Parts: sequence; structure tokens; C-alpha cells
Amino acid sequence: MRELATQVREAARALPAADRRAALRRLAQALLDNADAIAEANARDVSENPELSPSLAARLLLSPAKLETLAAGIRSIADAPDPIGRQLRATELGEGLELRQVTSPIGVVLVIFESRPDVLPQITALAVKSGNGLLLKGGSESSHSCRLLHRLALDAMGVGPVVGLVESRADVASLLELDDVIDLVIPRGSNSLVRHIQSNTRIPVLGHADGVCHVYVDEAADPTKALDIVLDAKTDYPAACNAMETLLVHHSVDPAPLREALEASGVTVHTEVEDWHTEYSGLECALRVVASMNEAIDHIHQHGSGHTEAIVTEDDDAAQRFLAGVDSACVFHNASTRFADGFRFGLGAEVGISTSRIHARGPVGVEGLLTTRWKLVGQGHTAGSFARGERTWTHRDLG
Amino acid sequence: MRELATQVREAARALPAADRRAALRRLAQALLDNADAIAEANARDVSENPELSPSLAARLLLSPAKLETLAAGIRSIADAPDPIGRQLRATELGEGLELRQVTSPIGVVLVIFESRPDVLPQITALAVKSGNGLLLKGGSESSHSCRLLHRLALDAMGVGPVVGLVESRADVASLLELDDVIDLVIPRGSNSLVRHIQSNTRIPVLGHADGVCHVYVDEAADPTKALDIVLDAKTDYPAACNAMETLLVHHSVDPAPLREALEASGVTVHTEVEDWHTEYSGLECALRVVASMNEAIDHIHQHGSGHTEAIVTEDDDAAQRFLAGVDSACVFHNASTRFADGFRFGLGAEVGISTSRIHARGPVGVEGLLTTRWKLVGQGHTAGSFARGERTWTHRDLG
Repeated sequence: MRELATQVREAARALPAADRRAALRRLAQALLDNADAIAEANARDVSENPELSPSLAARLLLSPAKLETLAAGIRSIADAPDPIGRQLRATELGEGLELRQVTSPIGVVLVIFESRPDVLPQITALAVKSGNGLLLKGGSESSHSCRLLHRLALDAMGVGPVVGLVESRADVASLLELDDVIDLVIPRGSNSLVRHIQSNTRIPVLGHADGVCHVYVDEAADPTKALDIVLDAKTDYPAACNAMETLLVHHSVDPAPLREALEASGVTVHTEVEDWHTEYSGLECALRVVASMNEAIDHIHQHGSGHTEAIVTEDDDAAQRFLAGVDSACVFHNASTRFADGFRFGLGAEVGISTSRIHARGPVGVEGLLTTRWKLVGQGHTAGSFARGERTWTHRDLG
Repeated sequence: MRELATQVREAARALPAADRRAALRRLAQALLDNADAIAEANARDVSENPELSPSLAARLLLSPAKLETLAAGIRSIADAPDPIGRQLRATELGEGLELRQVTSPIGVVLVIFESRPDVLPQITALAVKSGNGLLLKGGSESSHSCRLLHRLALDAMGVGPVVGLVESRADVASLLELDDVIDLVIPRGSNSLVRHIQSNTRIPVLGHADGVCHVYVDEAADPTKALDIVLDAKTDYPAACNAMETLLVHHSVDPAPLREALEASGVTVHTEVEDWHTEYSGLECALRVVASMNEAIDHIHQHGSGHTEAIVTEDDDAAQRFLAGVDSACVFHNASTRFADGFRFGLGAEVGISTSRIHARGPVGVEGLLTTRWKLVGQGHTAGSFARGERTWTHRDLG
């Protein structure tokens, strides 16, 4: 496993931007050219896993329409501007000594996903575009599809093994120990998968184990907006991580209309709750009446997961205090929690949603796969010449 | 310890920008007003630790001049613009629905330092300015100084315990387990301290265990620049993490003049080396002749620590390839490795130098204590209204 991870790192380092673009265009084409073989491998996965629920089986399926969308997505990633080497800061340190902070690949990223085999070419495109080496572990139920997609990806890369695929849990366990070779782990799947990985590696994990999101209906809320937002936040897609799990209502607001509307939409509303840190992931939510906005904020800090919280109010001062005071990745005013999403945020592809405060937070696009480096260009400059007063620091912003 | 960390987090959340500024100005003044008491506590530390080497004793000493500098530094941090809430990105998602990504505090930072008690007020100023809660562990040899400085810091804050001080190793061990309350650990001290912390916590660590920095003298190097840079990189401050440990010389360049100049400056030059990953931290270095720049890059990737590497060359193409190809936090062309430093980079105060690829890399200023949040402001917007086609995504950059 160490050898595989090291190979992947070195192959990624050796691949220049023009080659990365060409490789991704070849990958997009290969998905279309090999549609029949992919359909066959996928059909084997489906037939060998008759026990899957309808929703999991649907995720496993690689229909021709999915392949078309996938190929189009990969072409658009291929043709996007090179994300590497983008200048973030430039400073003249002294005469003739110029410092630039530029974006660069992280190194090696391990992505662990379940069910959906289309994650493989998609995340391959994002990782290759951003100059990273990639290690992948798919779900066992999609092994035939993943093996074929991995082979197509390797063929398209042309040069060495930028993308490695592992299949067993033992291999994943070995990879999770390689914190000196692997820089980031991205688990894409159930809460229990994320939690398992977070507690079994020293490698930083980009993701979120829980999405316990709140909507707080303030005393100055517009009742129609409150109703619209609460219903959307819970029922638009109840299993999503950005769905509302707890509704907090100011004591001066009658909660009955909200509760009745939720119930009319099939939502079970819990008011006697043992554990307020519960992600119902279905047509259920908790309801609590609070004495003040501060009590709502305290509740969120104590029981939330730091994902996404919304306030409904016509009082702009209250909204400002809520947005400044709530310490979550996403804080919304008069908008549904369901907007917390990479595509909706306009980030292009979504690498994941992070509730960590380190590296990247909230919905994360391709910038989550980047770090920065400092490039300094001089003309024989020494630190001693500044200490001796032969040169002087200018620290001039070069924009 | 959990209670202390939680208190610190909550106290930091409750402190608005104007109060933070006033608190830091009070802290700066308190250092001057209490100069006598500080000198007394410091003298007790010095007299109780007669075994310290002269250089460690010098670090421990809080002279009146050091206090003046410290107070001036804290005043300048107090008066700097508020780093929190700075807008990094603004996008209109749809009509009347505006998203802003803004800087925000990380939460709770644990700083573990050795010897120098002046780190306490300095890092307190940086943490409070950036809205973070802070937990501190100083060296046992500076306990009297640290206790007094901590009390002055708490008095200056006025509101709750934004800064906590722990004294025992057992307390630190407990804190290192609180990865759900503490967001970042910054060890400031010896390599062994950093390594110990990195291998004993799941909390992200900002720092570097090693600084094995390289200078590569290319075939197209200017001999005078090479000599200046090599001597500066090794002898300007040999114990620094950004000092050169290994000199790589292209085979077409005669290494003798470089070697002789180093030896004339008292440097022992090793050519028969067992472990190329060695941080000599003194007047010693390794020397290796390489067949090509690629061999130099491979050597750096195999044996380096990802800290800082420099190329000396008049060939701009070669320099470009080196700067693009070497995967370290800092890559320099015709400049000494000694420039890798927060002050020299113009970052203001330095929080640390990170060789991690996650969060912050290279010399890190106050931005290393910040993360971001997403603020979305709508007018009752629901995700469903976009799905139903009643609204359309605009994703317009608001600059």
C-alpha cells in the first residue's frame, strides 16, 4: 500500500497541465466509446446484489444518460482554467526580491465512496485537474463497474498510475495509516462511514459525520416566509445532510401553524426529545420553543453539528447578530438550509461538505484539493545583507 | 480540562471586536505598569533553573527592553484592522439571494511553548485579535513568569477566561484528547516537542518537526551568488529551521570553492552520509554531487522535509522547472533559504511555519488562526422554487 501511494504521488507530480487536460478529454471520450462494456459490468453488479434497496440499486445503476452527463461534466472540468499556480499574493520583500504565494496540488487524496460508481470518473477528473494523485475505494457492490472505470481512467492518463484503486477493507485500513504519504481523506457516504474513518486515521478528513441543521423562527419573522422556509428545509429532500432536523421557535410566535403544516406534509414533529443532537434523515423533526434568540444560539452551539443554520426574521439587527454569533459553516437569513450545497453555491463540482474548521469549511469545490506554496525569486539575495543594513525591507504589495 | 476548553471557547465567542481591541491595549499597558513584578517573577524562574544553558537562560529572561518591544507589538496588533468578517467571495445565487464567504475565528487553539515566556502575551494578542479562545502550556522553567503574565492577560480581558493556562504534562495530555473542542495545536519549540505532539493527538497540528532544507547549485549558477547564498543559508543562524542542511551541486560545477568557504566559516562538511534526512542544527552540513537537476529534485523529495529549498542558477527555464517541480512549502530562486520566515515574508507576527499541506503552509501569520464561514441572505427563498423553475440560478460574481 505504501508503494502504491508513493507511485501515485510521483505519477501526479510528473503530469504537466497540458497533459492533464488531454488525459481528461480522453477519459470523457472513453466513457462514451465503452458504454456497452460499462453497461455490461454494471449489470453484473446489479444482478449480483439483489438485496439492495430500490434507492441503493438506483444509485448503483450507470444508465446511458448518466454516462452522457458524466462525460460532459468531465469535458467541462478538462477545459476549465488550470487551478494550479494561481497567484494569491505577491510582495516585494526588498529591491529585486519578489515573493509570490501560488496554489498547488495537495499531493495524494484518498476517496472512499459507497454505491455510486459514477463517483470514480468524476473525482478522478477533479483530482487530476488539480494535479493530485488519487487513491480510490469503491463499495463492494459496484466492484465490476469500478474495476472497468478504473482501467479506462488509467488508459486515458497515458503516463503512470495517477489513480490507484483498492478493493478490500484491509487495504483501506493500511492506507489510513499512511499519514506521511496521504494528505487528505474524503469519505463520501453514510454518516457511519465518515465517523468510522474519522476515528481510524491521523490523516485530515474532509467531510461531515452529521448534519443537524436548525431553523430559528424569530419573534420578528414573517409568517409566510417562516412557513415556506421550514417546509422546504424539512421536506425538499429529508435525507439530505442540509435538511432541517430541529425547528426553534421564539416563544412569542405561535408554533401551531408551522407544526400543522409540517404534519400535513407527512412530517412527525417531536416535542419531547431525549437527544437534541439527532439527524432524523427522514420525515421527522424536533421542535423547541425558546425564550430568546440567545437561547436559540446556545441550543445550536450545544446540540448542533456546525453544518448549516437559518434564521427567519424581518429584524435586520437580529439577523446580523445571528449570522455573526452562530459558529457554523453556513449561516443563513431568510433562506432555506437546503441551499448549503456546492452546486447551488456556484462552486462547480462539489468535493464534499466540511464541518471541520481547518483547511476548507462548508461546501467545498476543487479548491479543497489545493494548497499553496511560496515562490521567492531574488538575484543572489542573502538574509545577512538585510541584517547588516546593506539592504532594506520594502514589503511592498505587488497586488 | 474539557470544562476549561469549553469555557475558553464560549468566552471567545462572547467578545466583540471593539472589546478585543480595548482588551489588548489594556494588556500592553499592564506589561509596562507591572514591569517590576514581572522582573521579580522572572528572576525567580532564572534563579530556580541554574542548570539552563546560556542560550536557554537568555530566552527565559524578560528584560525591560523585551517588555517594551512586547508591549509595542501588542499595541500594533490591537490597532490593526479586524481580521474577522473579511469578505473573500460574494456571489448572487439567484435574484435577491446573496452568498458571502467571510473569515472567522477557528475556535480554540492550544499553544505549547518552551523557555520563552514572552510567547504568552504575544500569542494571546494574536489569538484574541482573531477571536479565538486560547489554551497555553509554557515550559516548567518559566512557571512564575507565565503565571503572572497569564493573570495580567485575564485581568486585561475583563470578560470571561478567553485564555487558559495549564501547567502539568498530564493536563496537556488530557487537552490533546479533546479533538471535539480544540481545533488546532501549535507547538513552538524543539523538533522533539513537535514530533511528540504530532504523534499524540488527532487535533490538527500547525508546525514542522524538521527543517531539512536544500540549496541546489545548478550547472548555470553564478559562482558568486552560489557562494553568497550557500554561506548565508548555512551560517547566518545555523540552528534555525530554515538553515541549509544539504548542499546539492551539479556535477559540472567544482564543489571545492563552496566547500572551502564553508569550512573557512567553521562548517563541517559531510560527504559520506548515512542518513540524508538529518537536521544538523549547527555548523555542519551534507554535500552531494548530482548528475542533473532532476536528480536534485528527486533527492529533495526523497530526503527533505518539505520546508524550503533554493536553486542557484542564471538559467530561467531551469529555475522555472525547479520552482514548479519541487513540492515544498517554500521554493526559492537565487535567494537564501533563510528568507523563509513570517516577518521577512511581510506577514506581521508569525504563528508558526507549517510543512503540512492542509490549512496553512510555510510561514503562517494571523490568517493561520482563521477559517471561513458562508453567509447567505435571502428574502424567504426556498430550494424547491428553483427546482420547480419559479426561480433561476444566476451565480453572478459580486466581486
